[in-house]
Amino acid sequence: MGTTRLEAFSDGVLAIIITIMVLELKGPAGNTFSVLAPLAPAFLSYVLSFAYIGIYWNNHHHLLHTCNKVTGAVLWSNLHLLFWLSLLPFATGWMGENHFASLPTATYGFVLLMAALAYHVLQKAIIRSQGSDSLLERALGRDWKGKISIAVYVLGILSASWFPMLAQGLYLAVAIFWFLPDTRIEKVFHSRET
Amino acid sequence: MGTTRLEAFSDGVLAIIITIMVLELKGPAGNTFSVLAPLAPAFLSYVLSFAYIGIYWNNHHHLLHTCNKVTGAVLWSNLHLLFWLSLLPFATGWMGENHFASLPTATYGFVLLMAALAYHVLQKAIIRSQGSDSLLERALGRDWKGKISIAVYVLGILSASWFPMLAQGLYLAVAIFWFLPDTRIEKVFHSRET
Amino acid sequence: MGTTRLEAFSDGVLAIIITIMVLELKGPAGNTFSVLAPLAPAFLSYVLSFAYIGIYWNNHHHLLHTCNKVTGAVLWSNLHLLFWLSLLPFATGWMGENHFASLPTATYGFVLLMAALAYHVLQKAIIRSQGSDSLLERALGRDWKGKISIAVYVLGILSASWFPMLAQGLYLAVAIFWFLPDTRIEKVFHSRET
Amino acid sequence: MGTTRLEAFSDGVLAIIITIMVLELKGPAGNTFSVLAPLAPAFLSYVLSFAYIGIYWNNHHHLLHTCNKVTGAVLWSNLHLLFWLSLLPFATGWMGENHFASLPTATYGFVLLMAALAYHVLQKAIIRSQGSDSLLERALGRDWKGKISIAVYVLGILSASWFPMLAQGLYLAVAIFWFLPDTRIEKVFHSRET
Repeated sequence: MGTTRLEAFSDGVLAIIITIMVLELKGPAGNTFSVLAPLAPAFLSYVLSFAYIGIYWNNHHHLLHTCNKVTGAVLWSNLHLLFWLSLLPFATGWMGENHFASLPTATYGFVLLMAALAYHVLQKAIIRSQGSDSLLERALGRDWKGKISIAVYVLGILSASWFPMLAQGLYLAVAIFWFLPDTRIEKVFHSRET
Repeated sequence: MGTTRLEAFSDGVLAIIITIMVLELKGPAGNTFSVLAPLAPAFLSYVLSFAYIGIYWNNHHHLLHTCNKVTGAVLWSNLHLLFWLSLLPFATGWMGENHFASLPTATYGFVLLMAALAYHVLQKAIIRSQGSDSLLERALGRDWKGKISIAVYVLGILSASWFPMLAQGLYLAVAIFWFLPDTRIEKVFHSRET
Repeated sequence: MGTTRLEAFSDGVLAIIITIMVLELKGPAGNTFSVLAPLAPAFLSYVLSFAYIGIYWNNHHHLLHTCNKVTGAVLWSNLHLLFWLSLLPFATGWMGENHFASLPTATYGFVLLMAALAYHVLQKAIIRSQGSDSLLERALGRDWKGKISIAVYVLGILSASWFPMLAQGLYLAVAIFWFLPDTRIEKVFHSRET
Repeated sequence: MGTTRLEAFSDGVLAIIITIMVLELKGPAGNTFSVLAPLAPAFLSYVLSFAYIGIYWNNHHHLLHTCNKVTGAVLWSNLHLLFWLSLLPFATGWMGENHFASLPTATYGFVLLMAALAYHVLQKAIIRSQGSDSLLERALGRDWKGKISIAVYVLGILSASWFPMLAQGLYLAVAIFWFLPDTRIEKVFHSRET
């Protein structure tokens, strides 16, 4: 199996995840401004999750670009990543409906954490498939970016019971952190060409 | 990242948006003709939104055709456009259920307006990626079409409080305006070939 | 725009239509055999609609195969066809819930009729795009198959008020009629090669 | 019709099936730990079904790889397989909501059984399309793996009335059985190359 098909399937699943989340936004019963206000948390949760899926889609593409051999481990760690991301619409809807209450906020962070760990596992599987002198391994280095994100998610989950809004801020911070262009993989590709 | 993958992902998202809107159409409880009549606004909203997504899909394709380098700005302005379009099913359902009431009508117009602005931003990002002598910049000229649409959306949103049906008429007018073939991009492509 | 992208988008929309129909099948509240029985009409409606979308997908592919130039008319008649097919999940769900009552049965037939007419319009648009000596025109001949289907749908809609089960039988008959292999397009392709 | 398009359409349908299942997971009303516990069966059902669709996607790809001619029989047995798989979200949701009660558990097993039989029929259709000395026929041998799975599903359905948890264990066992790499097709491909 080439990476093309793995990528096409992942793209399809990510496109569906990013779009069905909107089904969690339910049109309010009345039609005055006052009915729109309670929708704000649901809307903000949607924005955050949309950004997260966009970021994953983008990074996932660069990641698979380094992969030239789809082993069983790569295939299943990829599905494992998609599994956790597929839970994001559920967590988003629940968090939005409950106006960022503690438990849904912690659950949302848990889904993000599991997705980040799954992404880490997928990276390892690709590195293993490349043998020694792995292009991806050099690009990632010690992967501080991935490790810091995981630490911040854990912090967010722990703080959600007392300060759910702090947890939200932490999730947002990680999103911004990843939104800023990451050129590690491109750099290694470039250095190899020269 | 080539435009192929950007296009494939956008196509996927647009195909899902255009299709899940139908889930907002709920089969009425009874089965006599009288239960079908209240469905008319929901149905008409669906027709309008279907046309809008069709138009965006078509124009988006022509737009990406002029793009030969996917910069970070292009990638994120594209996701930004998809974000606003993904809110159309929500706005459509809400407007249809409330029989074109003022607030849902204004909200619908707001989503259209933001999508139009996002489209404008995407155009700018592609133009910037092309440097001076941008093919797209020449094709668009002063982009009267885009500017007039935005003005009409604003007019629609403002009028929705007093004359929601006028707002609907304005949204429909913009759709027809864009439905008519737009050959600006094709012309520039053609002129370059000769 | 080449046919490849038109086909990919149509495939995406058809894949979503055929799959979201299952969302209309709601798990019954209890868990004894007696709660499954009322699901039968919903299940049978789903089977019929699944077969119809499968048939359209198959024929649509052959149809687009004859098309080598995507004109504006082809593009919009294709979206028009997708529009009516996108209403099938709604009609299916409504018909199933109401156990094949008259009005939902007639509505279902109406959606099938409009889809058949839209398919006819799409054929005409492709034929016009091919100019004289159209490959598709020769393949279709007088298109008895299309015309008979349309007549049977009309008959079904008319009979639905008195004999809804007869209407169901007629819809089923058309599906079987199209399910049987149709080799008109392949024959003309073949004759041209020799 | 080439296998490419059949594969793309199947991939689309499978990507949608695997993703819309999450819509069956409904955010609980409260936000304490006690409201999460009743979600466990729904979550576990989702995990199992996600794994099943992942396995089918993977095997389906290898299967179609052996197919070089899409006959009508191949096309329709493929749609038939997708039909049964498309019922998995319904069965998953119903089983999860009812906490693995007997009837939903048996229904879930029935859907798995029908999908397995449909897969068997698709294999036969591909073998028939390849004529004598079929690559796939040699790869499958007596297809003990497929036959054992079918037997275990039947056992699961029968046991569901008395021991629904045994049935769940049997379904899980088959998933693990298929999850382990299956190299039959690859072996034959390899032997042919040498």
